[in-house]
Amino acid sequence: MLDVTLAVPATVRAFSASALPWLDMGGIALFAASGAVAAARARLTFVTFCFFAAITGTGGGTVRDLLIGAPVFWMHDSVALGICLVMALIVWFTPQRLWQGKALDWFDAAGLAAYAVYGAAKAQAWGIPVVPAAGMGVVTACVGGIIRDVLAGVPSILIRPELYVTPAALAAGLYVALTAIGVSPVAAAGIATVAGFALRGIAIARGWRLPPYRGGEPE
Amino acid sequence: MLDVTLAVPATVRAFSASALPWLDMGGIALFAASGAVAAARARLTFVTFCFFAAITGTGGGTVRDLLIGAPVFWMHDSVALGICLVMALIVWFTPQRLWQGKALDWFDAAGLAAYAVYGAAKAQAWGIPVVPAAGMGVVTACVGGIIRDVLAGVPSILIRPELYVTPAALAAGLYVALTAIGVSPVAAAGIATVAGFALRGIAIARGWRLPPYRGGEPE
Amino acid sequence: MLDVTLAVPATVRAFSASALPWLDMGGIALFAASGAVAAARARLTFVTFCFFAAITGTGGGTVRDLLIGAPVFWMHDSVALGICLVMALIVWFTPQRLWQGKALDWFDAAGLAAYAVYGAAKAQAWGIPVVPAAGMGVVTACVGGIIRDVLAGVPSILIRPELYVTPAALAAGLYVALTAIGVSPVAAAGIATVAGFALRGIAIARGWRLPPYRGGEPE
Repeated sequence: MLDVTLAVPATVRAFSASALPWLDMGGIALFAASGAVAAARARLTFVTFCFFAAITGTGGGTVRDLLIGAPVFWMHDSVALGICLVMALIVWFTPQRLWQGKALDWFDAAGLAAYAVYGAAKAQAWGIPVVPAAGMGVVTACVGGIIRDVLAGVPSILIRPELYVTPAALAAGLYVALTAIGVSPVAAAGIATVAGFALRGIAIARGWRLPPYRGGEPE
Repeated sequence: MLDVTLAVPATVRAFSASALPWLDMGGIALFAASGAVAAARARLTFVTFCFFAAITGTGGGTVRDLLIGAPVFWMHDSVALGICLVMALIVWFTPQRLWQGKALDWFDAAGLAAYAVYGAAKAQAWGIPVVPAAGMGVVTACVGGIIRDVLAGVPSILIRPELYVTPAALAAGLYVALTAIGVSPVAAAGIATVAGFALRGIAIARGWRLPPYRGGEPE
Repeated sequence: MLDVTLAVPATVRAFSASALPWLDMGGIALFAASGAVAAARARLTFVTFCFFAAITGTGGGTVRDLLIGAPVFWMHDSVALGICLVMALIVWFTPQRLWQGKALDWFDAAGLAAYAVYGAAKAQAWGIPVVPAAGMGVVTACVGGIIRDVLAGVPSILIRPELYVTPAALAAGLYVALTAIGVSPVAAAGIATVAGFALRGIAIARGWRLPPYRGGEPE
């Protein structure tokens, strides 16, 4: 009973050690694929495919690790970079029509939600307080795509009229809020991932948007 | 008398502990506002407003902290990120005409000068020698605005024909030079901030520019 | 005889202490010059020249050092930043026609190959395994030019149809592979630098390219 506040970190650590790596690998693979698809649209070469896949797949997590003061995750084992190269190979050798429709958007939605939760959880594991930890979830989920768009010379996902940062903020914020009120990390991660994925999914399927800025005046 | 060289660092530390945090908060707030205004011009949503305000407000200081090897300043307390969110709220809910004229340019000029001095002082407090410390002042003052422009897809402040990097370099260079010749940090910070603000102000009011490159040939 | 595996790091360290700093300074100078030339093309002012030269000259190495967890190399002595400022001065005061033809491309090719090898070697000296170490060579060689292009608002070198990432990957990959099979670091660095320079040179002289993506379908 008395150990409730101490018990939570232990659960968090146990959860981190089991489920979180899978969220992480999934996020890397999905973002690497979206980087390779951007390279395909620009008709780039195979080496540049790999470069785009690696930067998009690892970019968000790299910025998160630099900000929280953790060793950059893909520096000390070769698995993450290997996943990116495999995704580049898969996109290169499969027919482009597989990657053109909304299929990729749905994978990307799953990666966005999973990566937002993983980023917030990793930041908390490194002792970052709740507000910046939620911010780290958003950074982990969004920065890879931002770098991909800037390098490809297309308008950044940030300024396209899609709900993209918002689902990431929902997933990261929910995870942080739920664990703060005592929900177990496993349940919080599940709820937050599903909520972020659902919001992004509605945006894809129905074109939902938040209202844009209208000049700060009542209408 | 003999302790003159040792006394300076103590003064620097005392000054850091009192006045510098205010320069820092001011710089964050002013740059966060300029990020939110860029989001307003692009007609973005409220969540993206917050993202732009946070990245512009914290971007320069984040890059500085990563470069000098300090913990990233907004990771371990929530004040900096809170200031950015409050500025996003203020810009969202106040009439746009308040933010359209030259008022923002003048706030930005104050933030530029204050942040250049603060960045150089923080770098010196972390043991960085004078030339890179002055460079850190320029980075702290300019990088937030550069990231804002790249994300918003507008030509970067660097390649617009305005005097912008130069006032930052003047403020940071003056602070470093004056403290190196024995001027007290408080006086050096005051002189450098005013000089940088004045130069940027003249650029705003009179359109002053440095001569552009003309091909390296005598005319 | 028995000390072969231990002898290699010692050789690496000896080589690092002698030849590698020259590769490093050469890479910084060549990339700084290319940054200043980009500033010249955009008709910027002298202060912005210096800023572009510094960011392009140090950018790749800065990102490498952040990723591998090393202190950022130009923070603790003023030589690297000094080289960038000297290159900015040289480009500013010499006739532009010197910098317009293919001369710069050839210098850039030398810098690309040298920096790719240096980046991979430095990463290995910091204990990074072979796959990410080769990646660090590519990052060191390419990121400065990418930042330069994004800031100047021109299409990034990544999406131009030139062989650029590939020679960097060849040089970095060869160095890592050759040292892994026991070739001495000096010989490996020489072979890898020449191979990367030659491939980039053929791309410049003959317009060689890799085949672009064609949709993943057999033709």
